[in-house]
Amino acid sequence: MNFKISKIDNKSQARAGEISTDHGNIKTPIFMPVGTAGAVKAIHFKELKNDIKAQIILGNTYHLYLRPGLEVIENAGGLHKFNGWDKPILSDSGGFQVYSLSSQRKLSDEGVVFQSHIDGSKHKFTPERTIDIQRVIGADIIMAFDECTPYPCSYEYAEKSLKITHKWLGRCFEQFNKTSGKYSYSQTLFPIVQGSTYKDLRKKSAEEIASLNAEGNAIGGLSVGEPHEMMYEITELVCNILPKDKARYLMGVGTPENILESIALGIDMFDCVMPTRNARHGHLFTSEGIINIKNKKWKNDFSRIDDKGDSFVDSDYTKAYLRHLFVSNETLGAMISSQHNLRFYLWLVETARQKIIEGTFTDWKNIMIPKITRRL
Amino acid sequence: MNFKISKIDNKSQARAGEISTDHGNIKTPIFMPVGTAGAVKAIHFKELKNDIKAQIILGNTYHLYLRPGLEVIENAGGLHKFNGWDKPILSDSGGFQVYSLSSQRKLSDEGVVFQSHIDGSKHKFTPERTIDIQRVIGADIIMAFDECTPYPCSYEYAEKSLKITHKWLGRCFEQFNKTSGKYSYSQTLFPIVQGSTYKDLRKKSAEEIASLNAEGNAIGGLSVGEPHEMMYEITELVCNILPKDKARYLMGVGTPENILESIALGIDMFDCVMPTRNARHGHLFTSEGIINIKNKKWKNDFSRIDDKGDSFVDSDYTKAYLRHLFVSNETLGAMISSQHNLRFYLWLVETARQKIIEGTFTDWKNIMIPKITRRL
Repeated sequence: MNFKISKIDNKSQARAGEISTDHGNIKTPIFMPVGTAGAVKAIHFKELKNDIKAQIILGNTYHLYLRPGLEVIENAGGLHKFNGWDKPILSDSGGFQVYSLSSQRKLSDEGVVFQSHIDGSKHKFTPERTIDIQRVIGADIIMAFDECTPYPCSYEYAEKSLKITHKWLGRCFEQFNKTSGKYSYSQTLFPIVQGSTYKDLRKKSAEEIASLNAEGNAIGGLSVGEPHEMMYEITELVCNILPKDKARYLMGVGTPENILESIALGIDMFDCVMPTRNARHGHLFTSEGIINIKNKKWKNDFSRIDDKGDSFVDSDYTKAYLRHLFVSNETLGAMISSQHNLRFYLWLVETARQKIIEGTFTDWKNIMIPKITRRL
Repeated sequence: MNFKISKIDNKSQARAGEISTDHGNIKTPIFMPVGTAGAVKAIHFKELKNDIKAQIILGNTYHLYLRPGLEVIENAGGLHKFNGWDKPILSDSGGFQVYSLSSQRKLSDEGVVFQSHIDGSKHKFTPERTIDIQRVIGADIIMAFDECTPYPCSYEYAEKSLKITHKWLGRCFEQFNKTSGKYSYSQTLFPIVQGSTYKDLRKKSAEEIASLNAEGNAIGGLSVGEPHEMMYEITELVCNILPKDKARYLMGVGTPENILESIALGIDMFDCVMPTRNARHGHLFTSEGIINIKNKKWKNDFSRIDDKGDSFVDSDYTKAYLRHLFVSNETLGAMISSQHNLRFYLWLVETARQKIIEGTFTDWKNIMIPKITRRL
């Protein structure tokens, strides 16, 4: 993997760049749709590629490890061959889901023992094991195994957790360097900055991570319930320490507004379940504002879902029809909304990139944020 | 509407024909995907048109009347404008759903009073009312309001029911002739032959319906639980009485085998929820046989879903991946299976038509039936 910056905004830290991988290039800033179990929910892969224009998607190690399991993925020849997505993939380390989904877990210096949320079976993730698992999954970018602290989190806990996360990080790189990819392409390991909302811990973590000089660096443990201003503050602090010429990935973020503000702080990569999860509840992000399509006000509105939307669903369906699908519990409703929201997210980062290159990013962002945050 | 037969099979009653409507032509024999609430479940309309190659779809009057309701449909300019499907649509009369779905119903000579399965609200369908509703929906082909008798059904009940159905039929045509389409195209009313499994009642009904000389005639009250042989016997009896030069529609049928056998008896049109409903349970119809994709035997099978399938899902996905989606409760599983099954049904009737024209239909049918009915 290689990262090159082609333009830095003159009024902010926003950067336009390009990541190259063995599965193709990714123009940054980029939003990565989440394909939890090897599928982006309610979206066909051809639409992800041709209509949404996703350049890279996420796979969740925790989910893929449990289902279909490593044997099937390895027999398929890796996740790309298994699900047919031939562009870049990023896999998380499974750490976040162990904390948020598994029914029981026990953390030690060695790793985490947890029970599957599916059948209660017991499993153990260690830094070494999650690297091995991610070697089998075969994502282009793989993540270090960390503890994602909750919010709020005591200073004592955050400090103790950060020590473990840093120790695990060393073990992850050691295992990564000792092993090689199982398939015919290379993989890159991203370390993750933690430290909760404590500036000194974040600074310490960012310095440690910066010293590794990895091709890309992630910021974890944000967007877990803290106020947005706090998230921006920590992001800014960390970005000022992380190497300028390496890709920066803000994990699990966020709303369209969060994405634009974080691009301004120097973030290059984002992922979030929000566009697809909210879509399934009839919550649409559009170029003119936020729509709850279940609302009665759309009952007789035969206009396009998003007047400026360029997904096929914006041309093929109307607000009134989409509302009817939700009211009638038709799966097509979630399919249309997910398609629309993901295309909107990709359009947003594509346009941000174009504005950075044109030198008008900050002005554009300041016009866009009031528009995309209002409720229609 | 107009129906023209271009070829009759020399070894059976199978016919290749063409129905022309103001929304375009339909090559017969044809299978019509069911779009209950104005949407074919889990399928985008562009796929229905371009990949599945559906030529006509169904809408259910009962569902559309309750949701989104007539006001919205009329404001949209009819169902075609509401859901964006610009090819032919057929609407049923709502009778079948009143019997199968509504929580309470009371039948009289006048019509049926029933409670909505959604909110328990009371409604009344009469022959006149269902014609008026279907004028608002604006389907190209609309159906007479009848009573679909259950199986088994006593002779006394079937005879009494048939009398009501025939009386209602007269009122339907009267209302149809008194009114005109609400939009800029014409509608055609199909009468329905009933009479349960009693040959004398079926004969009587078919003769009554034949005397109306409608452009198309439907056979209802079959495929409701009776043995397949009985269904074929009644279908054959009725087809021998119905006008040869008018389209024949066997309602709610059926399996791929049922469709091929009924084509041989002279049926031109079919509809059934089976390809989509079964798809949602992981039940696939393929050119080589029936697959339960949830079965463990497919866990490591990385072959195409259907080796001869020409839907994009047959090229884009494998059996192992599709199985994983079902095991993981991913919506994409139902989307892929529904797409595959509908395309298989359309491929089946397209191929049947081609074989009728080539004069090899019966031989082909005899080769196909053992293949498509075996369990893989």
